[in-house]
Amino acid sequence: MKAVGVIVEYNPFHNGHAYHVQSAKEASGADVVVAVMSGNFLQRGEPALVSKWYRTKMALLNGVDVVIELPYQFAVQKAETFANGAVSILDAVGCHSLCFGSESGDILSFKKTIKFIERNQQQLDDNIQKNIKTGVSYPKALSLSYQEMSSGEEFVNLAKPNNILGYHYIKSLLEQNSHIEPLTVQRKNADYHDEHFATETIASATSIRKALFSNNEDHPSIEQYVPETTYQLLKDYQFDFGGFHRWENYWPLLQFRLIQSSPNELREIYEVEEGLEHRLKGAAITSISFQDFMQQVKTKRYTWTRLQRICVHILTNSKKDEMKTGLEKASYLRLLGMTQKGKEYLNKQKSHVSLPLVSKLSAFKQPVIMHDIKASQIYSLGLGSASAARLSQLEYKQPPIYIK
Amino acid sequence: MKAVGVIVEYNPFHNGHAYHVQSAKEASGADVVVAVMSGNFLQRGEPALVSKWYRTKMALLNGVDVVIELPYQFAVQKAETFANGAVSILDAVGCHSLCFGSESGDILSFKKTIKFIERNQQQLDDNIQKNIKTGVSYPKALSLSYQEMSSGEEFVNLAKPNNILGYHYIKSLLEQNSHIEPLTVQRKNADYHDEHFATETIASATSIRKALFSNNEDHPSIEQYVPETTYQLLKDYQFDFGGFHRWENYWPLLQFRLIQSSPNELREIYEVEEGLEHRLKGAAITSISFQDFMQQVKTKRYTWTRLQRICVHILTNSKKDEMKTGLEKASYLRLLGMTQKGKEYLNKQKSHVSLPLVSKLSAFKQPVIMHDIKASQIYSLGLGSASAARLSQLEYKQPPIYIK
Repeated sequence: MKAVGVIVEYNPFHNGHAYHVQSAKEASGADVVVAVMSGNFLQRGEPALVSKWYRTKMALLNGVDVVIELPYQFAVQKAETFANGAVSILDAVGCHSLCFGSESGDILSFKKTIKFIERNQQQLDDNIQKNIKTGVSYPKALSLSYQEMSSGEEFVNLAKPNNILGYHYIKSLLEQNSHIEPLTVQRKNADYHDEHFATETIASATSIRKALFSNNEDHPSIEQYVPETTYQLLKDYQFDFGGFHRWENYWPLLQFRLIQSSPNELREIYEVEEGLEHRLKGAAITSISFQDFMQQVKTKRYTWTRLQRICVHILTNSKKDEMKTGLEKASYLRLLGMTQKGKEYLNKQKSHVSLPLVSKLSAFKQPVIMHDIKASQIYSLGLGSASAARLSQLEYKQPPIYIK
Repeated sequence: MKAVGVIVEYNPFHNGHAYHVQSAKEASGADVVVAVMSGNFLQRGEPALVSKWYRTKMALLNGVDVVIELPYQFAVQKAETFANGAVSILDAVGCHSLCFGSESGDILSFKKTIKFIERNQQQLDDNIQKNIKTGVSYPKALSLSYQEMSSGEEFVNLAKPNNILGYHYIKSLLEQNSHIEPLTVQRKNADYHDEHFATETIASATSIRKALFSNNEDHPSIEQYVPETTYQLLKDYQFDFGGFHRWENYWPLLQFRLIQSSPNELREIYEVEEGLEHRLKGAAITSISFQDFMQQVKTKRYTWTRLQRICVHILTNSKKDEMKTGLEKASYLRLLGMTQKGKEYLNKQKSHVSLPLVSKLSAFKQPVIMHDIKASQIYSLGLGSASAARLSQLEYKQPPIYIK
């Protein structure tokens, strides 16, 4: 049995994702699709709309066969670390290929780009430094430098968000000496950050979330952009837990923690550097919402996404010493769910899987997984105390979801 | 000019307090009344109904001439430490007498009781130990031991909450070699913890708060039990800030902090001892309200009040090292307000006042006062982010209230 890996967040699972899963299967000729999925907090420093269990169900009902959680330590990170964690999990579980969506859609240009950059690393670093001096953020300087160096050649445009992720996936595969073959399919229509509905059936997750959060009664229905099962699961979640998770729900908690902690305590948090603790504390008491707060603290140097990640780390009390070790590879596989075919695959692979496969939390108590549990408990606070008790019980009691 | 001191919380100021202020003036023959008042968090480990500024106004409009804040470090403490701080402030400001309300109403029995206990300290300690072994809490054991030893004599009943406070006031006066003369007036009608309205005009603060928090539209009006000015200030506060402060408002913050902090971090908090951190953390995620949480964590050993104080310390991030030093005497006088007569008194006293008199926060930055400011900021979070910004600005910008 052959497996193709995909690296996802499914926030929420929509028709574009279904297209990606199908394309991955076709392009790879694999029998099963294994998804590594961010848990309750996402790469861009946001709480997921609905819990990882519901997102796992959405995936399994729409073509994915196995869902494994990307631990918090890798998920709420810049692209490079995110890629390292995800690729190491796909490798451990024995995938033959990894298929990612990209704006480029051409795997050869990715490989060409990587080789070119490897050969010209020094010049790239110099260009980045030069661009940073003009006052732009690091990610911006990086993408400018790529563009400057690759002009005229058939390289991948690394200013595009999915291209840069793909670039890091391949780089991680190379660095980890993985046998996984990288594949890419072109993303259909919807730009990652696009807030508007693009076509009849495909829309970005961003635009879908925007529609879900709109108070306007006559906002466009998301029904046509997501599989029926996603639509139903979103409705169930809203009914069962009283709403969806968004940053504003956590603002009172973040504000409280910023005010009650000392600058020294804040400095212990991962990525709080260079006096940022004072800036964050100063803005906390006068801000009346998360949006308001972010507007006050953002600078050219700190992008919105980087600041959002820092805010998630403060919320989850993620310390430098907890977050900085073991970032090369994952150390366990937390199984969130599988189909019957996924189960067959895992059974056949069993003896080859190179990391402990965790399906019962009580049987496995490593510090990293304890951190995931804490993050889930804090995530569960976003919809009030009554929902929190039930949501966080899921974390302990929910066995991997199994769909026949 | 002679001043009589009173030690108060005014949560809120009611007719019984007005009676106490008048009686204090009459009993002492003083020209002015100086009140030492708990700030935004109170001795029993609760947020005050309304901010200290509004409670200061209530006091100044009803017979009190000077209001000085009892720092958090002394206010949210057992009776002994509370008394030490309050008495040291009255002493520093030059009061001739201290007049407290008590169930006993007889100052001679207080003095007799103190002498008796001094002479029999060893036996008292033995009795306390004996009673603790029967499984009761420390305060209960203390009061039982007092009762056992003082039976048949004309001693003060130290099982009564105001008697025990008075006992500690006099003890602190003696220990601090103060020249202040202690006086007591009998409390009128309302028992401290009484939840029901007792007479036509006098009701306990507890019953008044209960009426204010009642959702029942036809709950008895508090109008007849409080001065008109208190009634109006409570209405103003509700209108300006959207409600009153109560523990349930802070429950989401406390729950969050209990979940996100490690047991080691919790153990740094003042009075978190003997593994209590695990008990608190364990109950946090499954509790759906503060009441629910308290029911889960309380034991015979930990009284409700002691646990509430610990919860306030966790909320305000009050560490052992911050709270355990300088507990013998206050180190500054934070002036919250004065009448014209109070101002005259302070001007005349100026050269005799033995501690720095703080009326502008910006001019005085000691760690202890910074802790008061933090406590006020956290208190301000109890009514939502929009009110928080305005409430916490009061802390910095509000000059002492002056009423001509």
